Amino acid sequence: MPPLITLLTDFGTADHYVGEVKGVLASQAHSAQLIDVTHHVPPGDLRAGQFILSRVWHRFPPGAVHLVVVDPGVGTPRRALAAQATGHYFVAPDNGLLSCLPADARFLSLPIPVTAAATFHARDVFAPAAAQIANGTALTHLGSLITDPYRSPLPTPRVDGTGVMGEVLYVDRFGTLVTNIPGGMVEPGVRIKVSDTDAGSLRRTFGDVERGKVVAYVGSGGTVEIAVRDGSAARLLGVGVGAEVRG
Amino acid sequence: MPPLITLLTDFGTADHYVGEVKGVLASQAHSAQLIDVTHHVPPGDLRAGQFILSRVWHRFPPGAVHLVVVDPGVGTPRRALAAQATGHYFVAPDNGLLSCLPADARFLSLPIPVTAAATFHARDVFAPAAAQIANGTALTHLGSLITDPYRSPLPTPRVDGTGVMGEVLYVDRFGTLVTNIPGGMVEPGVRIKVSDTDAGSLRRTFGDVERGKVVAYVGSGGTVEIAVRDGSAARLLGVGVGAEVRG
Amino acid sequence: MPPLITLLTDFGTADHYVGEVKGVLASQAHSAQLIDVTHHVPPGDLRAGQFILSRVWHRFPPGAVHLVVVDPGVGTPRRALAAQATGHYFVAPDNGLLSCLPADARFLSLPIPVTAAATFHARDVFAPAAAQIANGTALTHLGSLITDPYRSPLPTPRVDGTGVMGEVLYVDRFGTLVTNIPGGMVEPGVRIKVSDTDAGSLRRTFGDVERGKVVAYVGSGGTVEIAVRDGSAARLLGVGVGAEVRG
Repeated sequence: MPPLITLLTDFGTADHYVGEVKGVLASQAHSAQLIDVTHHVPPGDLRAGQFILSRVWHRFPPGAVHLVVVDPGVGTPRRALAAQATGHYFVAPDNGLLSCLPADARFLSLPIPVTAAATFHARDVFAPAAAQIANGTALTHLGSLITDPYRSPLPTPRVDGTGVMGEVLYVDRFGTLVTNIPGGMVEPGVRIKVSDTDAGSLRRTFGDVERGKVVAYVGSGGTVEIAVRDGSAARLLGVGVGAEVRG
Repeated sequence: MPPLITLLTDFGTADHYVGEVKGVLASQAHSAQLIDVTHHVPPGDLRAGQFILSRVWHRFPPGAVHLVVVDPGVGTPRRALAAQATGHYFVAPDNGLLSCLPADARFLSLPIPVTAAATFHARDVFAPAAAQIANGTALTHLGSLITDPYRSPLPTPRVDGTGVMGEVLYVDRFGTLVTNIPGGMVEPGVRIKVSDTDAGSLRRTFGDVERGKVVAYVGSGGTVEIAVRDGSAARLLGVGVGAEVRG
Repeated sequence: MPPLITLLTDFGTADHYVGEVKGVLASQAHSAQLIDVTHHVPPGDLRAGQFILSRVWHRFPPGAVHLVVVDPGVGTPRRALAAQATGHYFVAPDNGLLSCLPADARFLSLPIPVTAAATFHARDVFAPAAAQIANGTALTHLGSLITDPYRSPLPTPRVDGTGVMGEVLYVDRFGTLVTNIPGGMVEPGVRIKVSDTDAGSLRRTFGDVERGKVVAYVGSGGTVEIAVRDGSAARLLGVGVGAEVRG
């Protein structure tokens, strides 16, 4: 099984940045397969980057190396990290992107070569580290262990006397509102409310309502989602990330 | 030769969906090469998905597995299909996406695991099936043969006393109008008309007219196309999919 | 180490074109790894295509084959090229895209099969040539050596009594203005001026100014760049490719 490196960035795919990173990876980890997760995290949106990573990394096989770069502080004293969790490897800036890793994850601080471009650590710091990991270099040879990575976890729901209260974590391309409320926290028959809108009780899938209607259901990530069949819930309801959701 | 899995969806590339599917494929078919065809089929546009598939699949080598998911009815009783044709393999919802396969294609209905997310069969049904096929599992081990897949083929042109009449099947990113009229059905010298516009007689390529001018030619798929040199025919002529074309 | 083919085009990723090209490559070079650089060069923008290629190709390992197609003159008598430089291989139309190759590059003219679609040489001329190169076919077996490829190099800066004068070569997705002025040509302490705006003297990175402020620095390609921290310099300053820059 060849080593596998996934790429998750906010670089977009129109410019030369992704190509440069892939060139470094291909040069320094000859046999690795490179797999794009996405390069369309909104520029600098750490929360969206963290959310996407949290949904994706554990789907890949152990041994995978995940290069995750949303890095508005590139070139400042923020640290560069490598990490290991459940047999997976990660390289990312120390800005909270890796907050979704399990509690027993190990973190290292990577040295920044003086020759690294101050605005492109993905190419000059993270890609070389990812390539070395893919080549089998032990993580501890790459940097020094740290115990205080910057943690900025996504918000979690809370339960009060009237039910569970959470929020919209992410809006996808279809305009679907993905919340942080696990399906199991919603009592049977309870109606889901997002902002001022009643989204009804939980259904199974889009086809359970008529076209253009709002539907709430337990999404593929295990949390409550609110969608509009063949439409956009974000647009119809006029809400986005951070909107309050009750169930 | 490593197995090869192509991906054709309407998921976009901004969210976590494609990454999750690739994670499952990489986990369950370790040595497979994953090749993106496109993830930018307009959401739910079965006709565009079918058109793109029809242009692409036979370019790949036999043995390729094509994961094709445009699936507005996900989670409803619509069946999940695997198919085989000319040495190629396909997994797709039973909604007409595979209508372009040759008449001797074989189709199977895949079981839907009770654990499959009702809104994400690409990850929980189609990717595992594609991985098994890539690993060499016989198709007949994956499901039960069926003879009545839903067929919704793209429209075909017809000939009347005055020539051939067809329509625009697809508009590409350049604004080029791709029709369903095979070049060989147009009599030499006949002028192509799209909606109310005379696009002239067939030329060879864009460079045969001046910049900004309309040009009709036999496109790379073998059918008549109408373009504007260094411009957009769709915008200039104000027409789109379904517009009548005469030749 | 498996052969590696990179793809750089203006085809976009929404249509069938990239899939068709990848299908030909996968069919004719079975073991090659296909790596997308970008398919989002603005349609027909030879200068942007050349710029991106110039930033990317040398990052890949020697032996890589670079398929580069921005080809507004497809089907006209413009030649089709294969080239070799520093152990890298290239296939591209003869329209200046390869002007960034070093002076000792070798160029060949590829024959155009009569069966090639006049509007899709990427699929019918360049992909088959790239596959043959990836398979180890000697370049000289593919076409005839030429010494007069069309050259249209990107503009270079000039020095006059008051400093160095260059221009904006490229605007990236973040709105950053990438210039052609090497960092080493700017005297210490000199203020960078773009169009009528004073961008201050060179800093190290975005974080060296406040949010929303203009910052000039030596970018990851070694030349002066002008950005707005967490914003778009192109939009804030209202300038684009070709704008005059002084340092």
